[in-house]
Amino acid sequence: MELVCTLCGRTDEAAPDARTCPHCGVEGILDVVYDYDQVRRELTHVSLAANPERSMWRYLPLLPVSPDTPRPNLRLGWTPLYRADRYARAIGLRNVYVKDDGQNPTASLKDRASAVGVVKAVEAGATTIACSSTGNAGSSLAGNATAAGLRSVIFVPERAPQGKLAQLLLFGATVVMVKGDYEDAFRLSAEAIDRWGWYNRNAALNPYLVEGKKTVSLEIAEQLGWKAPDWVAVSVGDGCTVAGVGKGFVELHKLGLIDRVPRVLGVQAEGCAPLYRAFKEGVERFVPEPEETLADSIAVGVPRNPVKALRAVRGSNGEMVTVTDDEILAAMRTLGRNAGVLAEPAAAASFAGLAKAAATGLIRPEEVVVGIVTGNGLKDVRSSLRAAGEPIHIGPDLSELERALAARA
Amino acid sequence: MELVCTLCGRTDEAAPDARTCPHCGVEGILDVVYDYDQVRRELTHVSLAANPERSMWRYLPLLPVSPDTPRPNLRLGWTPLYRADRYARAIGLRNVYVKDDGQNPTASLKDRASAVGVVKAVEAGATTIACSSTGNAGSSLAGNATAAGLRSVIFVPERAPQGKLAQLLLFGATVVMVKGDYEDAFRLSAEAIDRWGWYNRNAALNPYLVEGKKTVSLEIAEQLGWKAPDWVAVSVGDGCTVAGVGKGFVELHKLGLIDRVPRVLGVQAEGCAPLYRAFKEGVERFVPEPEETLADSIAVGVPRNPVKALRAVRGSNGEMVTVTDDEILAAMRTLGRNAGVLAEPAAAASFAGLAKAAATGLIRPEEVVVGIVTGNGLKDVRSSLRAAGEPIHIGPDLSELERALAARA
Repeated sequence: MELVCTLCGRTDEAAPDARTCPHCGVEGILDVVYDYDQVRRELTHVSLAANPERSMWRYLPLLPVSPDTPRPNLRLGWTPLYRADRYARAIGLRNVYVKDDGQNPTASLKDRASAVGVVKAVEAGATTIACSSTGNAGSSLAGNATAAGLRSVIFVPERAPQGKLAQLLLFGATVVMVKGDYEDAFRLSAEAIDRWGWYNRNAALNPYLVEGKKTVSLEIAEQLGWKAPDWVAVSVGDGCTVAGVGKGFVELHKLGLIDRVPRVLGVQAEGCAPLYRAFKEGVERFVPEPEETLADSIAVGVPRNPVKALRAVRGSNGEMVTVTDDEILAAMRTLGRNAGVLAEPAAAASFAGLAKAAATGLIRPEEVVVGIVTGNGLKDVRSSLRAAGEPIHIGPDLSELERALAARA
Repeated sequence: MELVCTLCGRTDEAAPDARTCPHCGVEGILDVVYDYDQVRRELTHVSLAANPERSMWRYLPLLPVSPDTPRPNLRLGWTPLYRADRYARAIGLRNVYVKDDGQNPTASLKDRASAVGVVKAVEAGATTIACSSTGNAGSSLAGNATAAGLRSVIFVPERAPQGKLAQLLLFGATVVMVKGDYEDAFRLSAEAIDRWGWYNRNAALNPYLVEGKKTVSLEIAEQLGWKAPDWVAVSVGDGCTVAGVGKGFVELHKLGLIDRVPRVLGVQAEGCAPLYRAFKEGVERFVPEPEETLADSIAVGVPRNPVKALRAVRGSNGEMVTVTDDEILAAMRTLGRNAGVLAEPAAAASFAGLAKAAATGLIRPEEVVVGIVTGNGLKDVRSSLRAAGEPIHIGPDLSELERALAARA
C-alpha cells in the first residue's frame, strides 16, 4: 500500500498519520494505491462467496487497515440493496435499486469513513480522535470512536442544530462549541489537533477515509451478483463520497471483479453547486459559492476534495446535474411512498437527480441504475415535515371520514 | 398451526383475519401454536447454519406465514448483537450484550410485527391495512405496507407529534388526524376497519404480530451460539413485545434448540406501571394508570396484552422493575457513551432496569445478560437533548480551550 499525490503524482509511504502531499501542500490530496496483483489473489468471487463476514470488513484486502487492529464494535456496512420497481416506474425507469446506507449504525454512509479513521487512529497509537463537523461526520466519528474505546473531540460552530449536538454528547464526545462560524471551529480544531497530537479525522486531508466510503460500491457490485449497473447516482458536497464511490468501482474493474465501470451521476443542490459548474466547464478548479440549500450535508461552498470528485465522475464517463430544494423534497416523498425508505435531504438529492436524468433522457428507461441513500430521514425531521403532505383532519365521525376519503379519490 | 385462547384454552383454526376468541370476546387474546414436531425437523442448528437468509425470515417454519406469500421488500430483523464490555463495567456486570433493534428498516423492533401483519393482510386478500397509533407501530406499518405494495390508513389523535406525522405521510400512508384523544382515534379506526373491510393491524387483538416480535429472541439465541443468556431485559408497555420475547425463548426450548429459558426482566416506567403492579400482586388483572413518563412508546395506562405479558415474565421465573424518567435519561447516556448505541427513552428503560437489577443484586455480576434496544434514539430528539450533557462553550482561542479541558479533567 502506498500513497500517491493527486496533483504531482509522487509516491509516498503509507504512514497511519499521513495527510496531504509534502510537496504540494494542503491541496495535494493523497490517494491510496494497493498492490493489486496481491489483492487479486485474495479477493475473488469465490473467496467472497465463502466469506461469512457481513460488513464492510469483508473487503479487508482492499482496505488500508491491518487485519489485526481492533475495530469499532458496530455492524458497519453491508446495508441492504433494494430493487424498487414501483419507484422506478414513478420516475419513468425500469431497473432501479436503492442502496439504503441510512441503515448504518449511526444512520449514515459516513460511518464507513469514520470506522476506517478510528482504526487508523489506533494504528497511529492515538487515544483521541478529533474533527470539526456539525453533521454526519461528527456523529459517526463520535459513535465509532466510543465503540472502539477511543475518545473523540468534536468542534462545532455556535449555530449547530441542537439535535445533532445531543447525538454527539450522548456518544460521549467532548463537544467544543466555538463562538463563531464553521471556519472558526475548523481553525481551532486544527490548532488543538497540533497542540495535543490528536488523530485528525478530516475526510479530504486524511487519505484513508475515502477508502471506507468506497466499500459502498464494493457492496453494490457484489449484491448485484458482480454485474455492474449502468449508472450510480450519488449526491456531491465536499466531494469525498463521490470520490469513494468512483474509486470502488474502478478498483473492482482493475481486479477483474466487474467487467466495466458504471457511469457516475453526481448530483449537487442548485443553491450550492461549485463542483457541478467546474464539471460543466471542464476544469478542476472551482469558484466558491454560498450555501443555499436545505440539504445541509451537501451544502459545501468550498469543497475540499474537488480533484478526486471531478476525476471520479469524468473517469467513469459520468455526468453531473443540479436539483432544486423543491425537487429534493419531492424525491423524499416519491422514495418514501414507493420504496419505504426515508432519506435525509442530501440523500434524496441523488434520487431527485435520477428523476431529472430520466426525464431528460440522459438515463434511458431500460438502463440499470443504483441510487445511494447516504443518510436516514430521521436525521432531519424539520425537512421531513416540509416534504410531507397533509393529513385528513376530521372529527371522530365515520360519515366525515367517508366524505374526506371520497374527496381524495 | 392453530390458535389457542389464552383465557378459555379453546382451539381454533388459524384464519388470516382471525382476531380474539369468539367465546371470550375482546379479552380472549389468541396464541399461535405450531406443529412443533414438524418444526423440529425443519429448524435445526445445522439447517440454520446453512441458511443464507440474513433476516427474520430465516425462521419461517416458526412463523405464521406461508413461504409463498410476497413480503415487504425491506431487510427485516437480523439486527446486530454487540458484546458491550465497557457498558457492562459501568453498571457493575461482566457479560452484557446489546441487541440493537433500532437498526430495523424504520428504526424500531415494531418492524418485525408490522412485517408479519402486512404478510397476513396479503394472505387475507386485503389491499389496505389500518391501525391507530402515533408511534412506532404506525411508522413501521406505513413503511412495511408500502414496501409490500399495500395501502395503509393510520389514525392519529390531534396531539400526535409533527415529526411522527411526517414519517407516516412520507411513507405514503393515508393519515387520518382525529379531533379528540387517542381513544377517539382508536374508536374511529375500528368503525372504519369494519366499514371498509381493511386489514386490522393491532398488536394485541391480532394474534400474529407477536409472532414477528418473537424473532428477536430467536436471533439473540442464535447469535449467542445457541447458549441462552441468564437474563433478557425488555421494556414493557402494552405487553406485546415482552410476550413475543418470552414466547421466542419458550419455543426454542421446546424445540431443543436451547437448553433453558432465560429469565425475562420486564421494565416499566415508574410513571405508568400497571403491569409491574399486577406482577407484584401476583394477579393477571391490572388497574389502569395515568401515563406519566417521557418514554412514550411504553406509556400505556391500559395495556391490551396483560395476560400474555405477565405469563411471559412469570413463566421464565423472571422479574419486573420500574425506573424513573431520570434513570431512563441516565441510561441513554451510559449506553451511548459506552456502547455507541442511541436508544429512544422506551428502549433505554430496559437498560435502566438492568442497572437497577445489577445494583440491587437481582442480577449477579457474572450472569450473561442481553438488553434489547427496541427503538433508535433519533426517533425522539427532544428527549435526547434532555439526556445529553453540556458542550464546552468557548471563543476560538486555544488557551481558552486549554483551561476548559483542564477544568473538566
